[in-house]
Amino acid sequence: MTSAKAIVYSEHGQVSDVLHTHSYTLADPQSNEVLILTVVAPVNPADILQVIGTYPARPEKNTKLGTAKPSAVGGNEGLFKVLKVGSAVKHFKTGDWCIPRVPGLGTWRSHILCDSHDVIPLPSFLSLDQAATIGVNPLTAYQLLTQFVYLKKGDWVIQNAGNSAVGKLVTQIARVKGINSISVVRNRDNLTELVEELTALGATKVITDEQNYDESFQATISEWVGDSKVRLALNCVSGKSASALVKKLSKGGFVVTYGLMDQSDLNINISITDYVFKQITSTGYWLTANIAANPQLKIDTLDEICKYYEKGLVVSPPFKKVLYKLAEDDAKGSTFLETMLRVVGDKSGKQALLFE
Amino acid sequence: MTSAKAIVYSEHGQVSDVLHTHSYTLADPQSNEVLILTVVAPVNPADILQVIGTYPARPEKNTKLGTAKPSAVGGNEGLFKVLKVGSAVKHFKTGDWCIPRVPGLGTWRSHILCDSHDVIPLPSFLSLDQAATIGVNPLTAYQLLTQFVYLKKGDWVIQNAGNSAVGKLVTQIARVKGINSISVVRNRDNLTELVEELTALGATKVITDEQNYDESFQATISEWVGDSKVRLALNCVSGKSASALVKKLSKGGFVVTYGLMDQSDLNINISITDYVFKQITSTGYWLTANIAANPQLKIDTLDEICKYYEKGLVVSPPFKKVLYKLAEDDAKGSTFLETMLRVVGDKSGKQALLFE
Repeated sequence: MTSAKAIVYSEHGQVSDVLHTHSYTLADPQSNEVLILTVVAPVNPADILQVIGTYPARPEKNTKLGTAKPSAVGGNEGLFKVLKVGSAVKHFKTGDWCIPRVPGLGTWRSHILCDSHDVIPLPSFLSLDQAATIGVNPLTAYQLLTQFVYLKKGDWVIQNAGNSAVGKLVTQIARVKGINSISVVRNRDNLTELVEELTALGATKVITDEQNYDESFQATISEWVGDSKVRLALNCVSGKSASALVKKLSKGGFVVTYGLMDQSDLNINISITDYVFKQITSTGYWLTANIAANPQLKIDTLDEICKYYEKGLVVSPPFKKVLYKLAEDDAKGSTFLETMLRVVGDKSGKQALLFE
Repeated sequence: MTSAKAIVYSEHGQVSDVLHTHSYTLADPQSNEVLILTVVAPVNPADILQVIGTYPARPEKNTKLGTAKPSAVGGNEGLFKVLKVGSAVKHFKTGDWCIPRVPGLGTWRSHILCDSHDVIPLPSFLSLDQAATIGVNPLTAYQLLTQFVYLKKGDWVIQNAGNSAVGKLVTQIARVKGINSISVVRNRDNLTELVEELTALGATKVITDEQNYDESFQATISEWVGDSKVRLALNCVSGKSASALVKKLSKGGFVVTYGLMDQSDLNINISITDYVFKQITSTGYWLTANIAANPQLKIDTLDEICKYYEKGLVVSPPFKKVLYKLAEDDAKGSTFLETMLRVVGDKSGKQALLFE
């Protein structure tokens, strides 16, 4: 038997009101099962919205962990290490790293006993940082660049939130594929530094929100692009920013919205003439739905990203690690919940609970 | 030598200012050429915008017909009868009907000498009305229903301008394919009659613009649709109407804009959450670009529509015929231009010049 703890919720509401710690014990894995230990649990904004109840995807609540009320474990992203494998498991051995196959596994817990097909093995050459974050941001960036339009070498992509984790990965993957990129970023005091940083990652051009909104700036972009095409625009900010990105698209271009970082303007405005005569297409991307619809696609995409990491072509997104020591928690009580609430409440960039 | 006349323009501007008649003679067809006689030249709104110069597709202007200035012949839709064929032409004989293969042929003329591959033969079982209008409205309706989402039996499509030529064809083709349709129409005194007419053509439901805009009406639509899906919305009216159609779409649905009948609101507004979480896609359809990109698709689509006509499954769009007698024009002078200007100026529905 293995002692384990999870951050669970049975009702939706503010994280500090509804999250609580649940302790349970797990039997040894049978047949196709694996017992896995959490190594890192990154926290994403969607995880918090899921607890609050405003996120469209909700994990099933049940009493499988022995909670009094039907409950769900928080979290969707995580890196795990295999502790024990059932007798029929062929593709895992003790010590292997793995990540969830589909969203909703519930990663805010110390251990999981699950079917070995609920997790995907990762190659051993990955660093802990690469492995811990491979399942969300790099997957999103890669699929955004490959699932909507065929981008050939020399084509252009334009994106807002160029300084976000996904934005930087889009820039790097575009460079690997020989695709030019324009990143739109917020103006700031240290803009020159940011431009240098993004250019070093592979951004062909970096522009500000003001330049994105300024219609007269189009001439500069046209000069950069020349006879090539701006085939793809990626939006994770606001409707207003997306509508401005659309104006940069060449005939037949796609704008794909994948996030809501700035909720000041939720509507994307595109003119009928742009749709009919420029054949613009506007659509959305949601990793959760994409993976649920096609789990194999996740595995194939991970393979590609692992190759990039193996060759040193792409830098994984940085994140802040907050240490959580399960052994001390056992002695002192509720530090798991306290640590998690601290991570959830800290908005200064991507964070993760590092289990020890 | 054959005497011929065409309505040409060398500059863009108001039709009454820039259109004029040009008389010319044509040699007998050589090798792969055909000499064809215009039977019907329907006039579409796009033809007029093309003369004015505000339409994005412009035919090439040249002096091939012996005009003093480089000129284009007006019109894009037409039904022709083969008068003479060149020695190498195998797929046409005198008396066959044909229509232009691609837009921009210039159909406002009495005769054309062209490559035999510039026109597509039509089967002889078509009526004159079916043949004269097959190349634009039925093609549009069929491609709108088949090129964006796969509609299976029992799926739903919703469209505005349900009373337009394309709208009625969408309704009929949907019925043939076992697809349910909702047509949005303007409220009017004789609404009951119109509902009866559209229902007889195959509309599953007919609603008014007000019901389309009314959010509380959604419950009624949900009841109609039940467990099926509204996979496709077709818009040719305004941005506001399109945005309301989007609200009726099921997850993963497409809204396709193909026209600008009401220019009061040119922007289609779709929320980021509809894009991301409902995976809505918004795009445009333009027959001209579609055919230019894939002429074979036009032939394949025409084959399907001909089958519908042969089996009596679909009624062709009605249009008003305005007679033009070339022989009398030769005697009296400029009646060709006068007749064409009368047709162009009459906004009471689809019109066509019938040549005799």
